[in-house]
Amino acid sequence: MVIKNLKDVPHEDMSAFKGVKKQILIGPRDGSEEIVMRYFSLEPGGNTPYHSHGFPHVVKVEKGQGIIIDKNGKEHSLECNQVIYVEDDEVHGFKNTGTGSFDFICIVPPRGEN
Amino acid sequence: MVIKNLKDVPHEDMSAFKGVKKQILIGPRDGSEEIVMRYFSLEPGGNTPYHSHGFPHVVKVEKGQGIIIDKNGKEHSLECNQVIYVEDDEVHGFKNTGTGSFDFICIVPPRGEN
Repeated sequence: MVIKNLKDVPHEDMSAFKGVKKQILIGPRDGSEEIVMRYFSLEPGGNTPYHSHGFPHVVKVEKGQGIIIDKNGKEHSLECNQVIYVEDDEVHGFKNTGTGSFDFICIVPPRGEN
Repeated sequence: MVIKNLKDVPHEDMSAFKGVKKQILIGPRDGSEEIVMRYFSLEPGGNTPYHSHGFPHVVKVEKGQGIIIDKNGKEHSLECNQVIYVEDDEVHGFKNTGTGSFDFICIVPPRGEN
């Protein structure tokens, strides 16, 4: 069993992405070989790339206000306690549209974190 | 893409467990074939069985105060934003030790929800 606190988990190098912070809360380094739980914090105005990849996302919004852009370019408002499933190869992107941090957990299979 | 709100997700039948509510936030019914995200709410005094099973848990505490009991019977205090990895076949149990609801998300592979 591994127990830790979000605040003690180091941030990954996200210098290529403006206004995006990422922590790997639980993953292979903890012995978790099937499920990886990451935590993203987007600064106001910050966004993730509008992209796709060969693995799914299971997301739960934890804090703030934002949007997700779907494969048709449509924007969907997001707030705390909304959950999202993004299937393999589905184009998507997140953006902070609020005035504070926009935070969400994003769970992927291990191939999504290699 | 599936988008929904925690408050709109129906509760599963947990009548065999006193003081335990469970929702399947994202799972096979949403098309998610690799990852299942559940949400548990334990009433004050409520607890999950002290048990083990052949699949892992990835947990994040969302609300309230509780404990997890590890394989040695040791109790570990839990509060919001603590994360836990429970490996396959590791004995564990959760209990609400606070005065309000003790809520956590618990992610499993699909074999954990069949």
